[in-house]
Amino acid sequence: MSLNTFGHLYRVTTWGESHGPALGATVDGCPPGVPVDEAYLQQFLDKRRPGQSKHTTQRKEPDAVKILSGVFEGQTTGTPVQLMIENTDQRSKDYGEIAQTFRPGHADITYHQKYGIRDYRGGGRSSARETAARVAAGGLARAALASLAPGLQVKGYMTRMGEVTIDRDQIDWDEIDGNDFFLPDAGAVPVWEDYLQGIRKAQNSVGAEIEVVCRGAPPGLGAPVYGKLDTDLAAAMMSINAVKGVEIGEGMAAARLTGIDNADEIFMGENGPEYSSNHAGGILGGISTGQDIVVRFAVKPTSSILTPRRSIRMDGSPTEVVTKGRHDPCVGIRAVPVAEAMMACVILDHLLLHRGQVGEGPRGVIG
Amino acid sequence: MSLNTFGHLYRVTTWGESHGPALGATVDGCPPGVPVDEAYLQQFLDKRRPGQSKHTTQRKEPDAVKILSGVFEGQTTGTPVQLMIENTDQRSKDYGEIAQTFRPGHADITYHQKYGIRDYRGGGRSSARETAARVAAGGLARAALASLAPGLQVKGYMTRMGEVTIDRDQIDWDEIDGNDFFLPDAGAVPVWEDYLQGIRKAQNSVGAEIEVVCRGAPPGLGAPVYGKLDTDLAAAMMSINAVKGVEIGEGMAAARLTGIDNADEIFMGENGPEYSSNHAGGILGGISTGQDIVVRFAVKPTSSILTPRRSIRMDGSPTEVVTKGRHDPCVGIRAVPVAEAMMACVILDHLLLHRGQVGEGPRGVIG
Amino acid sequence: MSLNTFGHLYRVTTWGESHGPALGATVDGCPPGVPVDEAYLQQFLDKRRPGQSKHTTQRKEPDAVKILSGVFEGQTTGTPVQLMIENTDQRSKDYGEIAQTFRPGHADITYHQKYGIRDYRGGGRSSARETAARVAAGGLARAALASLAPGLQVKGYMTRMGEVTIDRDQIDWDEIDGNDFFLPDAGAVPVWEDYLQGIRKAQNSVGAEIEVVCRGAPPGLGAPVYGKLDTDLAAAMMSINAVKGVEIGEGMAAARLTGIDNADEIFMGENGPEYSSNHAGGILGGISTGQDIVVRFAVKPTSSILTPRRSIRMDGSPTEVVTKGRHDPCVGIRAVPVAEAMMACVILDHLLLHRGQVGEGPRGVIG
Amino acid sequence: MSLNTFGHLYRVTTWGESHGPALGATVDGCPPGVPVDEAYLQQFLDKRRPGQSKHTTQRKEPDAVKILSGVFEGQTTGTPVQLMIENTDQRSKDYGEIAQTFRPGHADITYHQKYGIRDYRGGGRSSARETAARVAAGGLARAALASLAPGLQVKGYMTRMGEVTIDRDQIDWDEIDGNDFFLPDAGAVPVWEDYLQGIRKAQNSVGAEIEVVCRGAPPGLGAPVYGKLDTDLAAAMMSINAVKGVEIGEGMAAARLTGIDNADEIFMGENGPEYSSNHAGGILGGISTGQDIVVRFAVKPTSSILTPRRSIRMDGSPTEVVTKGRHDPCVGIRAVPVAEAMMACVILDHLLLHRGQVGEGPRGVIG
Repeated sequence: MSLNTFGHLYRVTTWGESHGPALGATVDGCPPGVPVDEAYLQQFLDKRRPGQSKHTTQRKEPDAVKILSGVFEGQTTGTPVQLMIENTDQRSKDYGEIAQTFRPGHADITYHQKYGIRDYRGGGRSSARETAARVAAGGLARAALASLAPGLQVKGYMTRMGEVTIDRDQIDWDEIDGNDFFLPDAGAVPVWEDYLQGIRKAQNSVGAEIEVVCRGAPPGLGAPVYGKLDTDLAAAMMSINAVKGVEIGEGMAAARLTGIDNADEIFMGENGPEYSSNHAGGILGGISTGQDIVVRFAVKPTSSILTPRRSIRMDGSPTEVVTKGRHDPCVGIRAVPVAEAMMACVILDHLLLHRGQVGEGPRGVIG
Repeated sequence: MSLNTFGHLYRVTTWGESHGPALGATVDGCPPGVPVDEAYLQQFLDKRRPGQSKHTTQRKEPDAVKILSGVFEGQTTGTPVQLMIENTDQRSKDYGEIAQTFRPGHADITYHQKYGIRDYRGGGRSSARETAARVAAGGLARAALASLAPGLQVKGYMTRMGEVTIDRDQIDWDEIDGNDFFLPDAGAVPVWEDYLQGIRKAQNSVGAEIEVVCRGAPPGLGAPVYGKLDTDLAAAMMSINAVKGVEIGEGMAAARLTGIDNADEIFMGENGPEYSSNHAGGILGGISTGQDIVVRFAVKPTSSILTPRRSIRMDGSPTEVVTKGRHDPCVGIRAVPVAEAMMACVILDHLLLHRGQVGEGPRGVIG
Repeated sequence: MSLNTFGHLYRVTTWGESHGPALGATVDGCPPGVPVDEAYLQQFLDKRRPGQSKHTTQRKEPDAVKILSGVFEGQTTGTPVQLMIENTDQRSKDYGEIAQTFRPGHADITYHQKYGIRDYRGGGRSSARETAARVAAGGLARAALASLAPGLQVKGYMTRMGEVTIDRDQIDWDEIDGNDFFLPDAGAVPVWEDYLQGIRKAQNSVGAEIEVVCRGAPPGLGAPVYGKLDTDLAAAMMSINAVKGVEIGEGMAAARLTGIDNADEIFMGENGPEYSSNHAGGILGGISTGQDIVVRFAVKPTSSILTPRRSIRMDGSPTEVVTKGRHDPCVGIRAVPVAEAMMACVILDHLLLHRGQVGEGPRGVIG
Repeated sequence: MSLNTFGHLYRVTTWGESHGPALGATVDGCPPGVPVDEAYLQQFLDKRRPGQSKHTTQRKEPDAVKILSGVFEGQTTGTPVQLMIENTDQRSKDYGEIAQTFRPGHADITYHQKYGIRDYRGGGRSSARETAARVAAGGLARAALASLAPGLQVKGYMTRMGEVTIDRDQIDWDEIDGNDFFLPDAGAVPVWEDYLQGIRKAQNSVGAEIEVVCRGAPPGLGAPVYGKLDTDLAAAMMSINAVKGVEIGEGMAAARLTGIDNADEIFMGENGPEYSSNHAGGILGGISTGQDIVVRFAVKPTSSILTPRRSIRMDGSPTEVVTKGRHDPCVGIRAVPVAEAMMACVILDHLLLHRGQVGEGPRGVIG
């Protein structure tokens, strides 16, 4: 019900607007005894933080996260963890025109229609700044996963930006954090830079596709019907600003495949079942197989562009909107750490759910 | 939390296995005073029912829905509505081999690993028979929508099956219910029939892509962040058996677009804002714009095929699986009425949520 | 949200009306591998069943429970368990007057005001028949508790009926099931019988107080603030028809005590902490101490009596109501098995929650 | 599920510990357009604030509430409202002994057993300081009620403290806020003062009984079975620290009454149905009748007293606990504004729920 909350047992409620005093995440359900501090969380926020490369908005925010509750002497206590990020770079400016105008592709118009009131400063609640709170909550989820499922990894990277894509044979997770595009192939970076530079010069923006993988998750996570692991992952990704599509494994391409091609055949390996392939993306019947869990999603191009677009004002009169100021030409880039955070939350949540309903570990032995 | 439940205010819990005595949907939160009876619901079940065309499984089930509670003198009372469908065509047979074997692409192995026990008869809980209960609950949602939002329509149709696709210029909703493929273009039916016949003869199966549209929804449905209308629609579709991808509006293609191309410009029409296009799929910031709400999803090819696939038994020994018996070569076909049902449930749910939080109708006036 | 559902991880949704075709409980979240069958559940339903003694309504219902899903080869599978009880004793009669009249003390008038429609047959959804479904779900909870927490017992008994009370020095759990009043003191039965006979002869009814105890629960069940074990127990008991008060440990009498008197002093016993007394009712800060968990509640006297009471009809005209027919002079008697069922559900729910959030068993060692 | 959250549509999640940097309430689901500011909320916090009279703890906290989100230009926006109260009076002291000792009657021991870690500073999460956050959330609920249900009042007052009680014939709501005991009878204040002074001198503490009334609620609030208005009120009150019993209307005394005495007869008044009495406490079948909604609850005596009580340390060794420092001799006094806050939240929540499921206002007309 709570529409600003996600998760079943690891429940994250984000709050706050782009230009209010602060924003944050209220996390209820984190297991006790998890070692965590602000510095640990900050590393994930720093990855998402704007103003770090020339490819993202130059808004300067330290995005410093504070833990206000639920952690004592360096460990979680099992009570709610409040993670707050104060807004510091609130440039004072005249919002007169923005306050009266609906920017195409933005939530301005739908928030107004729904609520009759909207915090127009920087997009208010609909701003991508809200995702900073998710990243903080995701950092906490990673800390808990490190305790509960050592070895489990969650990693995201870009796979497409407009016309440029990655070479899947060149994927190397170690290279992802070494470049501004979260690319798993350092060699591709110059091409991506040139392409985005062209987009920017054309006063345009561009969409992106991101892939997030969870490696090392045990089999058995997820549940039938509406608590499926893929259902929750789809919801988690679709809830990120500007996301328009979500795929598991083969994704939309599954519509083109035949059953012979799509089959992941099963073998008995040394440590349990193994599969000839992973068309399923690591999930069967909503429950993890133990393979890599593979999610992909598409982010639409930034709506705020320097090229004028036609729109209307609150009084219905026509206008043209040109968005000046600090905007990412490809918002998809900064969606990578956000998606990692969401996946970490979902995986932790299902680990806790599984433990609650079934107990420690999978119950069914094979072989 | 309830993993077999979906919805916030219109809450549907499905229950039942493929070969148990019955299955059904417990619906809590249907508004009172909605005229409905079993015959009304049956029309939707009849669309999903197997054994109706040569393209779907020949299992014969009347799928007759009974209303056991919550309806009195032809109207809902506001109390839970129990919709039960008895299983009648439970062929007695020897499950010996299936009981010991994990079929590739099925939930057999993950259910076993998670729970240590599975009802292997016909796939048990993971069978697509579960979707009959959803269709019943969706029929009730349609009855409520007919009262609360007259004129609102929910319509689904196939857009792709393997290599064949529809011509978007030929879409005619009136033709959808007149053919076995739920195609909005009657002229394409022979091509689709030939194609599927080829798949079947090759002892193969094939995936599909389905589009579902809600026309006539008011602006203002949905909510920020985790109660977004697109978030709930993505979860609803991904929860359907065999679905691997979900798209809103442009969907995954948004990753290829630029901001100039993707902009839906806004104009003032006679009855409110209008848009030059609908790349957004009728949703901005998680809230409906009043345009068509457009969802698309991909269904993987049926895993149960006559061509042998390698697998293992519960004891880990290798085996080959050939699925004989009654299986759809394209399970995507019967996903159409299921997806319509899910969309009807989501839209009704958000209508009730909006009414609860905001009151009747949108609050913000334009013009 | 779901207003006909209770529980966090062990979620019970009851459905059905007094005189509809059936009623039941949809149970989601029962752990897998729990041995259970219909006969096991039936023993609890038989305790609640009307028509068994001269002190309860003579309506004859077999109240035979059927398991429609979620159990396979004698064990739960982890999927939803549908427990259905068909209504068989639906005397056809003329509801003309009842349909138009609001009985004092009944939900007739509030259901009508809220929904504008009510199933007036036998009280519809507000009938105490709904509690049969709770007893079935409670039976399943007991089966799960027998697996997860062997030795844990849940026992309810009457402590007061109008002017008669039990002697607390005579409490013997072994005597509870041997008399019609669920009295823990067989010697008191004749007095209670005489008292109730007098009430009946006076065309009157009488209230009751019931105590339910959980013995053998581990320390650590419950959670801070709104998931407190006592919070959930209070809600569970207050949700039973006709209940007007709930107490934990000292209950309302705590208002009269001083801190010196109320203190439960702590000692170190052989197997962990022990307490000098149990004023707290086995719960501190919302979390179980390992002592007996003690809940008490009051049931108001049956509203349906043979003595005329003044009321109005739907058209507002005055009338007098005399309730003929089959009604318990003390509905509190049959509330005993219902309260046991609710407590079993709450305890199981918190066992699963604890396991989910914290893991198997309490984490903190003492001594 | 969220164990630190309550409410269905108006959802309040409190967070924070007694001696952490801050505590607060994350409120999701407040309707948009509600006029509110910090000063409005502060008046309710000031009523609960310690250090205001000689009868409550002398801890000095300004308890200044800050609105960090969800309010724009003096009105709620429909997005989450973050209400934060910083802790300022955190006396630095040596917690050595308290950190190792379990105080009788406190959550020290159960938190330790459950989580294996506890924030022992001032009771941590189990401190009654948490209720400051509830009062803030309740203030916001009152602001929303003022918009949605003008004329509706929520009022609490003490009815008993140990041996002293109020004279029900002298209840005057206008006197409640004029004395330190929230007594509705100013004439009784000296007696209560003397009594409490005696308790304090005896190095003792004492319990209390509080009554909270909602006047002016429309009929139709609440829902069958587990969303009953009385169920939610019972849970809300029982979730307050130190509460051991909750009553609706006659409460526990209902066990002593007969059906003839307990009947609230119904008449047709000018504006709808009226009742001869209110034994039911304004709720029938879980749904409001339009009469005063009457809840009563008991608070146990403060466990922290100057008289030594026996206990154990974490290592199991015996000790005696004497609680020095700033503690209320009757914690029940400050529970009054907390209970008002909880009732305001529950009533608002059910107003929104009713509007969502049924629409504006009751549906059923009488007369």
